[in-house]
Amino acid sequence: MLIVMNPDASQADIDRVNEIIEKLGYKPHPMPGFSRTAIGITGNKGAVDPSHFENLEGVADAIRVTKPFKLVSRDLRPEKSVVKVGDAYIGGDELTLIAGPCAVESYDQVFEIAEAVAASGAKFFRGGAFKPRTSPYAFQGKGEEGLKILAEVREQYGLNIVTEAMDEKGVDLVEKYGDCIQIGARNMQNFSLLKYVGKTRKPVLLKRGLAATLDEFLLAAEYIMAEGNYDVILCERGVRTFGTHARNTMDLSIVPAVRTLSHLPIIVDPSHGTGKNYMVIPMARAGVAVGADGLIIEVHPCPEEALCDGAQALLPSQFRVLEAEVRAIHEALEPQKAVIPA
Amino acid sequence: MLIVMNPDASQADIDRVNEIIEKLGYKPHPMPGFSRTAIGITGNKGAVDPSHFENLEGVADAIRVTKPFKLVSRDLRPEKSVVKVGDAYIGGDELTLIAGPCAVESYDQVFEIAEAVAASGAKFFRGGAFKPRTSPYAFQGKGEEGLKILAEVREQYGLNIVTEAMDEKGVDLVEKYGDCIQIGARNMQNFSLLKYVGKTRKPVLLKRGLAATLDEFLLAAEYIMAEGNYDVILCERGVRTFGTHARNTMDLSIVPAVRTLSHLPIIVDPSHGTGKNYMVIPMARAGVAVGADGLIIEVHPCPEEALCDGAQALLPSQFRVLEAEVRAIHEALEPQKAVIPA
Amino acid sequence: MLIVMNPDASQADIDRVNEIIEKLGYKPHPMPGFSRTAIGITGNKGAVDPSHFENLEGVADAIRVTKPFKLVSRDLRPEKSVVKVGDAYIGGDELTLIAGPCAVESYDQVFEIAEAVAASGAKFFRGGAFKPRTSPYAFQGKGEEGLKILAEVREQYGLNIVTEAMDEKGVDLVEKYGDCIQIGARNMQNFSLLKYVGKTRKPVLLKRGLAATLDEFLLAAEYIMAEGNYDVILCERGVRTFGTHARNTMDLSIVPAVRTLSHLPIIVDPSHGTGKNYMVIPMARAGVAVGADGLIIEVHPCPEEALCDGAQALLPSQFRVLEAEVRAIHEALEPQKAVIPA
Amino acid sequence: MLIVMNPDASQADIDRVNEIIEKLGYKPHPMPGFSRTAIGITGNKGAVDPSHFENLEGVADAIRVTKPFKLVSRDLRPEKSVVKVGDAYIGGDELTLIAGPCAVESYDQVFEIAEAVAASGAKFFRGGAFKPRTSPYAFQGKGEEGLKILAEVREQYGLNIVTEAMDEKGVDLVEKYGDCIQIGARNMQNFSLLKYVGKTRKPVLLKRGLAATLDEFLLAAEYIMAEGNYDVILCERGVRTFGTHARNTMDLSIVPAVRTLSHLPIIVDPSHGTGKNYMVIPMARAGVAVGADGLIIEVHPCPEEALCDGAQALLPSQFRVLEAEVRAIHEALEPQKAVIPA
Repeated sequence: MLIVMNPDASQADIDRVNEIIEKLGYKPHPMPGFSRTAIGITGNKGAVDPSHFENLEGVADAIRVTKPFKLVSRDLRPEKSVVKVGDAYIGGDELTLIAGPCAVESYDQVFEIAEAVAASGAKFFRGGAFKPRTSPYAFQGKGEEGLKILAEVREQYGLNIVTEAMDEKGVDLVEKYGDCIQIGARNMQNFSLLKYVGKTRKPVLLKRGLAATLDEFLLAAEYIMAEGNYDVILCERGVRTFGTHARNTMDLSIVPAVRTLSHLPIIVDPSHGTGKNYMVIPMARAGVAVGADGLIIEVHPCPEEALCDGAQALLPSQFRVLEAEVRAIHEALEPQKAVIPA
Repeated sequence: MLIVMNPDASQADIDRVNEIIEKLGYKPHPMPGFSRTAIGITGNKGAVDPSHFENLEGVADAIRVTKPFKLVSRDLRPEKSVVKVGDAYIGGDELTLIAGPCAVESYDQVFEIAEAVAASGAKFFRGGAFKPRTSPYAFQGKGEEGLKILAEVREQYGLNIVTEAMDEKGVDLVEKYGDCIQIGARNMQNFSLLKYVGKTRKPVLLKRGLAATLDEFLLAAEYIMAEGNYDVILCERGVRTFGTHARNTMDLSIVPAVRTLSHLPIIVDPSHGTGKNYMVIPMARAGVAVGADGLIIEVHPCPEEALCDGAQALLPSQFRVLEAEVRAIHEALEPQKAVIPA
Repeated sequence: MLIVMNPDASQADIDRVNEIIEKLGYKPHPMPGFSRTAIGITGNKGAVDPSHFENLEGVADAIRVTKPFKLVSRDLRPEKSVVKVGDAYIGGDELTLIAGPCAVESYDQVFEIAEAVAASGAKFFRGGAFKPRTSPYAFQGKGEEGLKILAEVREQYGLNIVTEAMDEKGVDLVEKYGDCIQIGARNMQNFSLLKYVGKTRKPVLLKRGLAATLDEFLLAAEYIMAEGNYDVILCERGVRTFGTHARNTMDLSIVPAVRTLSHLPIIVDPSHGTGKNYMVIPMARAGVAVGADGLIIEVHPCPEEALCDGAQALLPSQFRVLEAEVRAIHEALEPQKAVIPA
Repeated sequence: MLIVMNPDASQADIDRVNEIIEKLGYKPHPMPGFSRTAIGITGNKGAVDPSHFENLEGVADAIRVTKPFKLVSRDLRPEKSVVKVGDAYIGGDELTLIAGPCAVESYDQVFEIAEAVAASGAKFFRGGAFKPRTSPYAFQGKGEEGLKILAEVREQYGLNIVTEAMDEKGVDLVEKYGDCIQIGARNMQNFSLLKYVGKTRKPVLLKRGLAATLDEFLLAAEYIMAEGNYDVILCERGVRTFGTHARNTMDLSIVPAVRTLSHLPIIVDPSHGTGKNYMVIPMARAGVAVGADGLIIEVHPCPEEALCDGAQALLPSQFRVLEAEVRAIHEALEPQKAVIPA
């Protein structure tokens, strides 16, 4: 069930609807939009009776939602969401660039890259302190020590920090030191973790699982939002197919598919999406051209010495080429309208 | 590095090797085998110098391991492992049958199925109290209340309980009430959870991820074993492909592939592997014929009313047919030799 | 449209229905069954008016067919078809074994293998004279010379010859020298070739394409049958997935899926399905256990010298083990009823 | 083996090398390039002795080729090939646009679309007279009658005709009426057909198979070139994966992958690649941004009445939007250098 308010409904009208939803034992999810507020209802077992709402002051409509996703849906919020991450925005008119090393390795490595990223005009810095590695014997990340280095990067360069958490303890630490909690592809259906980050107040970058369908991807976001955290950014990072020329197969058609169904921003990750240095720039261009809200890119000054995923990292000089090319494409395209929340 | 002891090495010899491994700052993993013990070493960053061990009493050989997996490997333990689950064994000569509902729904539902399962000769009962569901609004399981019902099933029918945990709290509860901790396909690369169950003393049923390669599957088991829990049972449950006639595509060739590389037992799950009632029996036959150590099967007295995955559940009467057919095949095949640990 | 005749309808009744179908400008496909004949109609653009048939002598029913496949369907023929290939049958109670080298290399090679195959009790011999090779520079087969060698094998050992054709000239030659025309996976949707073999009077072994869905597979058979050749045998040979431990992923659940929809026999090919010698026997066992009508197996006395696909060929001694094991499974299972046509 | 001539080698020098190659029983494939000619050798069974060539007048180097592809390779021709199709070029600085209906349905339908395509500035017209349809009962195309309509389109609008052939008779007809022979995805490994078009003198548009790897795709082109037809244009049209939000998954990273290995032009087909009208424009933008040489697009004035694939066709007005957007991106990117052959 979805309660659509009149454009001129007052805050008191909205509060009254929320109250009634709570009295019925459900959870209200008010979503202020460009011209009007809609209120999603979760927690119900079966259909909700619309007569509870139809005659209330300020209510325009009570709509039954038949799709499996509610809060991620354009039904709830027709215009695109813009998510505030630190002091910048993802999903608005401006192209988002998130760049940095795969893993935080050392103070010097991180600062060398951060210097280059800051100079480029990117507003977000990435770097993993907790690394989900296929082998238990591979480098697992520097943990809290790494997060502290990232926090210093924010201090010094004003870059907003996007970094992965793999479990509840990690989420608590990323909440303390970072600006955006990344949920990796392998945890996209770690539902306990999704619920946990749904209770934080930090935005979440949710990566698509290696074999996740569109519905599963959106419902993973729905898990987070159903707990009350509406600041979710989706990220396509390639799926697993029979192909061998790239590490993964980037599925860019998910960008227009997400746009059709959901108000959430979506970015693409051509570094993991291809796993090969020479493919990153062309696929970054394609990602921007297809209409993604931004890119997340791995940059390393010395890829052959990287402790993790060196083959896909760009040199700082290559990242500058990427930035110039994708900005040219972004400018060549008419930007979609989006609203920055007050 | 892998230290192979002489067949006549004493426990003191073994202890001495373990001590030296620990002094070097590494972790020893002694694996008693049919004719001799081998000791895996983990925790080293680079190669371990074999000269530390070569001249010790009782040491036959110090072998460098170049494959990414160590403890799961046949190099460490040439014969197949047999895992004790409750009071029964998985991986020995006897075919393992694990049966029960997808989800624990109620006392009556569970006991009706348990009655039928116990009558069949199966020694293991399955049933989920924590359900990983694609949608946050779908039935999420009965939690601890469900586990208590399962514990009563063990009490009353002597069936050993296999049930899923999705997070640390769930692992603690399954450890308390159950006999085997199931890690679901969506959590196969939830590395924090793997490490956590690696620290328990309950056996773990590890399901293959929906797009996991053989290496990733074995390395997920290695994550558990590296923490000291060697009682891992693998489970093939279908992978995701372009095919639409079944819910998943069962990849039975992974059974001989695992046999070649690993000493761990492997069972197959034709219920999730096909998602269709009419395919479960034929694919169960195929799973036993290919050489799996057993089957895990969903049974429900009233599949059309099941709260979860009803389309794939067998009626108790169908499960009896399945049992008869797979036992006939199992008997027709020469069983592989395996050793039950003392 | 499907015309179902009464069990006691006379040949004259059937002929009369065929005549009317032809007068309407369509093509009749009479399929004699166990208890009654059904007549499929193809060539119509829209729905056929049942009133043309309903009151005719001997007609029990005129059924509208809404599925995309007609002639392959169990609606047309409820019992399983048995296809005569040379002097033997595929699809009946007896397990079919087709064995031989990937490619015909020389007279001596072929006869050495044929000797072993004939000794085993298999009734069918395989061997390619036209080889579809990924590279234009790889061995392309011996052509007509190879077919002549195969024809001598039939003469000498009484084995029925199954061999691939890749184009119309090849079909003409296989029709002349062989007993069953194999259409390879890469040609499963070579619709011109399907129509061409549909006009021959030799049975066709149709291999599933590397990424073919069940519907596409059955409709490829329908292409052949719509031209009047009803003697089609399906063959599952593995599909392409992300997996790397085997050359292909065998999708055995297609066997029960085909059984549900179609009367056509289906066999499996664990040699191409796995591409690895050590997996062939276990997957052959699985194929028989799942209910396939038979197996097609590559055998080579010296796999490391094979001009094509040596890695998957069994030694003659291994083939004998395979045969013993799959016969044991076949006997352990209750055979499905099937009817051998007069 | 690959013979690289000096930049100042004379035609007589080249002829001499060709002669010697032929005398050795092999086939020479001279490829004139920007600064020098290279001559590929095919038809050899093993390695060719370089001493036959090293001391000849005009020969710079004799290079052993170890990759499975020779004539498609950048080793043979370092710069990108530009293929002449009718009176226009594919692979040069100008973006290629090929547009038209999926199937030729009628004179009026084709001319209405051709009018719009010609007005747009596209130089190539597509339309199928032979349609590879999954079902034998679906519309199979208008055959030669359709080709005649296409030939009239060329006459009237000066558009170059790209149209599919499915067999040898079809190739002969397309050679007569069209400008470029399209080989469809389902025939990408129909090796007999590839060899046949390799003997024509018309350029070939080769679509990637639904589950073809990069190597298989390039080797399919090699089949055509090995017969002497070097005018091959590759086309990515989506591959088959587990995804369901689009009809296929477009694998755009194959464009930079092809560039690295091959000199052949590559275009992309977002109509078949997505199967959904609303995805065609975004994916067309992505295709141009990733660096493809052009696009092939389905246009239909009345998609809901199309006899084939209506769901993916653009309206003429949508095609104009597409054209404007992709030209803007093409101009925003620095074009890769390419050489138009004399």
